[in-house]
Parts: sequence; structure tokens; C-alpha cells
Amino acid sequence: MTPFLRPHLQTIPGYTPGEQPPPGSTVIKLNTNENPYPPSDRVFEALQNIDGELLRRYPDASARMFREAAGTVFDISPDWITVANGSDDLLSIIMRAFVDANSKVVYPMPTYVLYRTLAQLQGVQPCEIPYDESFNLPISQLATADGAVTLVASPNSPSGTAIPIEQLEKLAVQVSGVLVIDEAYVDFAESSALALVRDHDHVIVLRTLSKGYSLAGLRLGFAIANPQIIQDLNKVKDSYCVDAIATLLGTAAIQDQDHKNRNAERVKRSRGTLAHDLEQLGFRVWPSQTNFLLIQHPDAKALELQQWLKQRNILVRHFNLPSVVDKLRITVGTDEQNAVLCQHFTHYLSALKSS
Amino acid sequence: MTPFLRPHLQTIPGYTPGEQPPPGSTVIKLNTNENPYPPSDRVFEALQNIDGELLRRYPDASARMFREAAGTVFDISPDWITVANGSDDLLSIIMRAFVDANSKVVYPMPTYVLYRTLAQLQGVQPCEIPYDESFNLPISQLATADGAVTLVASPNSPSGTAIPIEQLEKLAVQVSGVLVIDEAYVDFAESSALALVRDHDHVIVLRTLSKGYSLAGLRLGFAIANPQIIQDLNKVKDSYCVDAIATLLGTAAIQDQDHKNRNAERVKRSRGTLAHDLEQLGFRVWPSQTNFLLIQHPDAKALELQQWLKQRNILVRHFNLPSVVDKLRITVGTDEQNAVLCQHFTHYLSALKSS
Repeated sequence: MTPFLRPHLQTIPGYTPGEQPPPGSTVIKLNTNENPYPPSDRVFEALQNIDGELLRRYPDASARMFREAAGTVFDISPDWITVANGSDDLLSIIMRAFVDANSKVVYPMPTYVLYRTLAQLQGVQPCEIPYDESFNLPISQLATADGAVTLVASPNSPSGTAIPIEQLEKLAVQVSGVLVIDEAYVDFAESSALALVRDHDHVIVLRTLSKGYSLAGLRLGFAIANPQIIQDLNKVKDSYCVDAIATLLGTAAIQDQDHKNRNAERVKRSRGTLAHDLEQLGFRVWPSQTNFLLIQHPDAKALELQQWLKQRNILVRHFNLPSVVDKLRITVGTDEQNAVLCQHFTHYLSALKSS
Repeated sequence: MTPFLRPHLQTIPGYTPGEQPPPGSTVIKLNTNENPYPPSDRVFEALQNIDGELLRRYPDASARMFREAAGTVFDISPDWITVANGSDDLLSIIMRAFVDANSKVVYPMPTYVLYRTLAQLQGVQPCEIPYDESFNLPISQLATADGAVTLVASPNSPSGTAIPIEQLEKLAVQVSGVLVIDEAYVDFAESSALALVRDHDHVIVLRTLSKGYSLAGLRLGFAIANPQIIQDLNKVKDSYCVDAIATLLGTAAIQDQDHKNRNAERVKRSRGTLAHDLEQLGFRVWPSQTNFLLIQHPDAKALELQQWLKQRNILVRHFNLPSVVDKLRITVGTDEQNAVLCQHFTHYLSALKSS
């Protein structure tokens, strides 16, 4: 840290992403909610179209090709869409567009830890409203907190739970600022809140290609909202924030809804099996509409269990946050990976019993 | 625009990038300083290494592979380097790290227009010190302006001129905040100010792969500075701001210094020929250490000439900025493109004379 760093940034911790072992590592990686299956064949076909012209020239700043493809998929005009370098980038752009030093950032907790970091980077102490044990949305508390920006991840991480659209609409009606519905995990859920953007000028739905489309390596996220909101975001964002390759491959990926849906169905089936197997082992498993499970065991200490697994080359996620400090978040892997995980849990729990 | 947009953002214009015609257009594109030659063959070889694992997993947040390769090239430790989504992204990160509402952003004018936009986005009215006609650096005026961040593009755009390292060092000694030396065009210049970061804790040198390495489509920029400064920037920047493909291809590109240097030599030879030909046509041509030329003709109105060329599918750049409003900035193209440009100038000027 230097003395040049702005005072409010000196004391905040910054964001720590989940561990990324180097390529070629033999770990079973269930800690950052990547899709266990590769992206669409069309993505690999699109790779063949990368030539010197595409690389040496600046990309289309508006990623029109992608926005048109996404517009067709979601039956929405391309001017209701903007694209950025992952939905993390869009979250940062939203904060910079709408959050002044004297305004509030509001969200229920526990949720995606980056919301807190981004509020702090913006010089604002976030207003965090606790979820109850079943992760019901605290609508009136969120609304009365009067955020310039209110954020709800649905489905939520690390809980895996989704908020019914009627409740999100109730919140949309009550909030006074912008409402962001972060649908990073929606491809594994039963429904989407996308319809809300049509009726509510102040609602932004965020999507990403990182989870459902198996493109976490690509960094491509998009926001869907009223064109006026989109223009606000475009004013703040970097002109060329999505590169030519991401635009090309992202377009190929979003045009193959069948591939995405097939993979999502596989993940959901595996999720059901894994949840059942974990319950058999005595874990409490929260109902999930994502590609991960939040779990808790009455006998096991979460952080110790996470460390024990890590020593055995299995990465899962532990959050040092109120109400989930005693739980683990486990990405749904392939059936083979999930079975190995359950074998390890069995060993761990039987060793616990005999000690 | 919505009423949610922060008050200071409501009135600013935002940044307008140079025109990007759609792929396949037959224009001669000399308006955004792209390299006329394709990137290294090693980049295309690296493309063959993109597989499903690379795409479905999050990238290495720190782009270690690229930083190690760049460290080797510049003989500097990787912890003196951070990487972002183009050097535009780094400029934005620098503003957010070091510029408070009551602090100043200082730079000489005319220069890269984005500096103004980023200062305004940060809620600060920039302090712009005019260059003289020969683009000598106004060192004492810049220093006494007391910027939290002082920016100097060297070589500068749109002038093409470079600031001698002795003068940059003089400025480094005198400024009280952070000094950013934006070396986007350094690959076409006679020298670099990179050595300054070793002796001055508060100097940041910015580099990009967009110009010298022919990778404008990729969006990969990097900052070189003292590790303390690098840590400040890392705290503010998005965790995964450079994607896995950009890291892979960027690493291949920076490892092929021969290719970059060969292309730079070709561009510099063409620049000399073009400058000579333009002077023969009566243009004043500023001395350039970049891949573009700033030119002015006593008889031609710059904006009219730019529009006339555009109607003939030749794009060059006109800036509505004090002291260059009567000039044009012309990217050095291939020798064939430059010859077509000069033919058009000849027609235009002879038509002017006979009218």
C-alpha cells in the first residue's frame, strides 16, 4: 500500500477470489461453481474464424453481434442489452453509475461477497440485511433501507436458493433506487425474473456466460434493462470492454441453447443425486436452484472439513460469513467427482465417530 | 439517461471511440492507429491450445503466465507488473485508486481524450495544461498543478511526439502525486521511460498489446511500477479482468519480440516515406515516434478534408480540440494504403486550387 491510495481504500480488504489451481493440476475442483462440462461445439468452430484481421483491429465497442444473438434468444431488442467483461465488471459499472458517497448499497446477507467489496471500493458502507435460516427475502427491510442500488442474487450464492418472481416484483415496487437481480445461476433454476425489466424501468437483470454456458475463462457478462438504464451504464463503462474473441465465441455459445440446456439438465440430475447422498450421510442440504449445494453436518466443523478435503486434493468453498460459517458450498461436479467427494465424506465422518 | 444516474455524470458527454466499420468493409482504415500487419504466428499457434478446460474454468486472476513472460522481456520481476483489460482499463483503475473528489487530475493538452473522460467520471474537473506548438512538455506548470494523478502520454497522441526521458524524470522529481507515463505507442519510438519506475516509487508506466503487437482485438494492457503501487491497483481492479484466451495469446505475442520489432521497423520506414510524400504535397508534418502522423495543410480545412476522404472510404481522425482542430491524425498504413491516401490528397488539393 502507498500513501497515494485513497483514504477509504486503505483499510478495506479487497476481494479474494476462490482458489484457482494451475492448469493440469489433478484436483477435484468444486469451489468456484464452474460447469463440469465443456462449452458448445459451436464455440470451437467459431475459434476457427479468428484471423489476423479480427485480432489486429479494435473490436466492435458495442458487441452488436452478441447483443443481437442474445436479443433473439430472450426476445428482446438489442438496445435493452449491454455487455461487459464478466458480470463482475457490470456490478462495478452499476456501482460507479448510481452510487454516490452519501447514498446506500443494500442487499440481503449472506450473498455474493463481491457486493460488499464493490460498495466499499465506492466509498460506501453497505447496508446488509440478514436472510433468515430458510433464505426468505426480507422485502420490507430491504426496501426501507432506501438503497441507491439494491442487489439480490437469485438464485443466491452461497445458499443456492431462488427467490420467487412475485417476491422480487414486490421488492421492485417498493425500492426507490435501482434494483439489480443477479441471475448468474439462472440456467440451473426453475424460472427467471427477466420479465420484470419490461414493466419496471429501474430493474436490471444480470447474466453471465460463466456458469450455464461453461465459459468462465472467457469473461462475458451482460445486463438487460430499459434502454435508458443501458445508456447510463454505457456512459460509465470502458469503450472496448469486451474483446473480439469473447464477442465471437460468446455469440456462438448463446446461439446453442440446446447445448446449454442439456448440460444444465445433467447438472440438475447430478445435483439431485448428490443432495440425496449427502442427506443419507447426515448432512442438511438447502434446496438448490444452482450448480452447487450449501450443506451442513451436525458433527463436522465446516472449516476443518474443508481443509481436510483440500489436503486430499478436493477443493470446496468455506465462507467466513455470519450464518454460513458452519456450512460448506459444494459445486456439483460430474457424477464421478461427486461420488469421490461422498466417499471422502464417509471416511471423514466414520473417523469422527470412532475418535 | 435516468434520474438514478449520479448528478456529476448527467452532464458529461462520455467517451466516443473512433469509428469501427463492420468486419469485411472495404474501407482504408487509418483512424484508430491499428497496426497494419497481423500478430505473430506464435499467437495463431497458441490458439490451437484453447480447449474446453481453459474455457470452462476461471482464468488465473493474476495472469501469472503473462507477467512472467513480460518480466523476462523487460528484465523486471513479475510482481512489478499488473494486467488489465486494455490500458484503458488500467487508466480507469488508476483514477479509482488515487483520485478523490477533492483531488486533481493533471495532463498536458492535446492528448488522449480518455484522460478527460475518466477524470470527469471520477467526479473531478481535470486540470489541462496546454502544450506549445512543438509539443514541449510544460514541466513546471504540470508539477505546480499538484495532481493526485499526473498523466503524460509519451509518445503522445494526437501529436505523435515523444518526450525525452530527462524531461520525464524532471517531472517525476517535481510532482507530488502519482505520475503515469502512458507508453501505448512506445514500440514505434526511439526510447522508453521504463527505467524511471526503478528509481521513482510513484511512477507507473503503461503498455498495451494493441499497437506494437497487433492485438487491439484482444484487450490486453499492463502496468509496470513499484510492487506497492501494483498492490494498490490490484485492490481496485476486477479480480478476473483478463480472460484465459487473452492471457494465453498475449503471452505468445510478447515472447515474439522479433516479430513485433520487424513490424515496427516496417511501420517506421513507411512513416518516413509517408511523411516525405505529405511534405511534398505541402503538408506540415509533426515529427512522429508513433504509427501515425499529425498533419496540417495551409489550404485545406481539416474537418472538410476528413469528411471528403470518408466519402471515398478512407477513414482518418479529426479531433475537435484546441490547437489540433485544424489538423488531421493519420495512421500509417501499408505502403499501398499510404499511396492511395496520397493520391486522394493530390486530387483534393488540385481541385482546391482550380476552384
